[in-house]
Amino acid sequence: MEKQRTLDEVGKFGLINLLTKDFKTGKNTIKGVGDDCAVLDYNQSEYQLVTTDLLLEGIHFDLMYSPLKHVGYKAVMVNASDIYAMNGTPKQMTVSIAVSAKFSVNALEQLYEGIKIACEQYNIELIGGDTSASMTGLAISVTMMGTVAKDKITYRTGAKENDLICVSGDLGGAYAGLQIFLREKNVFSQSKGVQPKLEGYEYVLQRNLKPEARKDIVENLAKQGIVPTAMIDISDGLSSELFHICKNSHVGCKIYEEKIPINTFTGEACKEFSIEPLIPALHGGHDYELLFTVPLAQYQQLQAIPDVSIIGNIVKEQDGLGLISRSGDFVHLKAQGWD
Amino acid sequence: MEKQRTLDEVGKFGLINLLTKDFKTGKNTIKGVGDDCAVLDYNQSEYQLVTTDLLLEGIHFDLMYSPLKHVGYKAVMVNASDIYAMNGTPKQMTVSIAVSAKFSVNALEQLYEGIKIACEQYNIELIGGDTSASMTGLAISVTMMGTVAKDKITYRTGAKENDLICVSGDLGGAYAGLQIFLREKNVFSQSKGVQPKLEGYEYVLQRNLKPEARKDIVENLAKQGIVPTAMIDISDGLSSELFHICKNSHVGCKIYEEKIPINTFTGEACKEFSIEPLIPALHGGHDYELLFTVPLAQYQQLQAIPDVSIIGNIVKEQDGLGLISRSGDFVHLKAQGWD
Repeated sequence: MEKQRTLDEVGKFGLINLLTKDFKTGKNTIKGVGDDCAVLDYNQSEYQLVTTDLLLEGIHFDLMYSPLKHVGYKAVMVNASDIYAMNGTPKQMTVSIAVSAKFSVNALEQLYEGIKIACEQYNIELIGGDTSASMTGLAISVTMMGTVAKDKITYRTGAKENDLICVSGDLGGAYAGLQIFLREKNVFSQSKGVQPKLEGYEYVLQRNLKPEARKDIVENLAKQGIVPTAMIDISDGLSSELFHICKNSHVGCKIYEEKIPINTFTGEACKEFSIEPLIPALHGGHDYELLFTVPLAQYQQLQAIPDVSIIGNIVKEQDGLGLISRSGDFVHLKAQGWD
Repeated sequence: MEKQRTLDEVGKFGLINLLTKDFKTGKNTIKGVGDDCAVLDYNQSEYQLVTTDLLLEGIHFDLMYSPLKHVGYKAVMVNASDIYAMNGTPKQMTVSIAVSAKFSVNALEQLYEGIKIACEQYNIELIGGDTSASMTGLAISVTMMGTVAKDKITYRTGAKENDLICVSGDLGGAYAGLQIFLREKNVFSQSKGVQPKLEGYEYVLQRNLKPEARKDIVENLAKQGIVPTAMIDISDGLSSELFHICKNSHVGCKIYEEKIPINTFTGEACKEFSIEPLIPALHGGHDYELLFTVPLAQYQQLQAIPDVSIIGNIVKEQDGLGLISRSGDFVHLKAQGWD
């Protein structure tokens, strides 16, 4: 009898590949499984982008420290970030929720208030959805559609040797924020009267609770006439995303520890937990920043875009994926497995 | 302080309306919340249709009696049925799953095998998705996209006085099948050695486990040159769907008990539970048949389509929604609330 494999053995990306390998796509589908979005071809000038995320209470969010309004806002951001990662513009979304009896209508109104604020700020339309009961907790499924001009679409596949590797914003903050929440939740559950101590941690808490999809970066790239050769959003961590770009583009990469953007507040929070800030920056994920590659020739235009760090460059595939540490050592990057 | 309303108080459709009332849609969105699908306008000849469903173990399916392969198949059918209800053709879908550690990779392969069979039979492409962990059980979210020629789209809004009210297939079978499953599950849980008795109930069990979306009806309507004036799929029950059509079209309806299609096997299964078969036919739901209205002038063409029953006709709004019983009585139809 065939051995029953466990989910841990195949890993998240192995599982997706395994389950979807026998499916075929047709003429209107330019790209199926395997990038930030699926890409559909229904008109002359633009592609349509489709992305989806399923968020579960207890796995993706914890209502002990995430207000429902923030959960709603973040559910929109997570998907918008995938559309921006294709160099696109989010347009419409559907939201399905399943809720257990513990939720009041007013609680759900808060969830939708957060969704509405995100939709208004990012100019996205809510066009449909589904509501149903659940046995335990809240499940939210968002599918988002967007568009991108055909000559501007950015996959994970186009990175070339010598391209500059760029990252928006800063990394590791969402992970640091999570550690603070978990610590305070723990303190609270041990002695109910104690108020959680969140002052001074606003930056990292905000990074965790209310990430912003990088609309501004995509707009500024367009203004500067830059179409990245490859782009992905950082949901699983810089290291994992670099693996996706390098594997799909058949290249290697060299990044420099000292160039990886880490906010001072993130560094301080990490210190409290004796965590080296580089670790959450590489592997923490959930920062929803953009990782992209740009031809060296566009260095000048790139300099005109605020809040972008050049962290290294693309190398030949056989040179592998490496991090040059502050001390000058070459460290092989590792991808993370099932989350 | 404002009273905390419960979900029961507002009901499923009340909740959707309440949560989505303040959202606005833009120029590419022809129809947002409020029909079987959202309708997008991205090219000259066709609209794009979008529908989504979130299915949870323990709420929408029970793995005690639903094999994962059937769960996968049904997840596709439920969404395809919504596309057909707009007179459209399903094209692409995304599937997101969240699974707890109790599932093996092989179990998930069975789920995707069912999805694949459905995709092949209905010519639908799997283009993306998401996998993640869950605390308890399996959650499946499907979003499906389809197309429909602009002059063929069918909403819930177009039913006119004197139109014929038509229903495909037969009703109440899925509900009867569920009763059989629940009875046998109950017997099994009380005395583990006993094998469930499922022979003789194949028809109703099949109606529950493996519904078919009515591609054939939409194709045959096109062949006969019929564009229904209104259409909806029967997921919540005939009575509830008639309410949607009548409310959205500002009309009433008169249907005849004797014309409502109920399979013999459904009738027999209902008898065992002392249920009047009319009740699941009106309120059972989950049959995924199509309910549609056709101008009286197209009666001849309608007759050429197999497996369609004419169950009544559209009347003036002020005449209400009525069922004429076998004894000739006029009974006011009732909609069902939160499921």
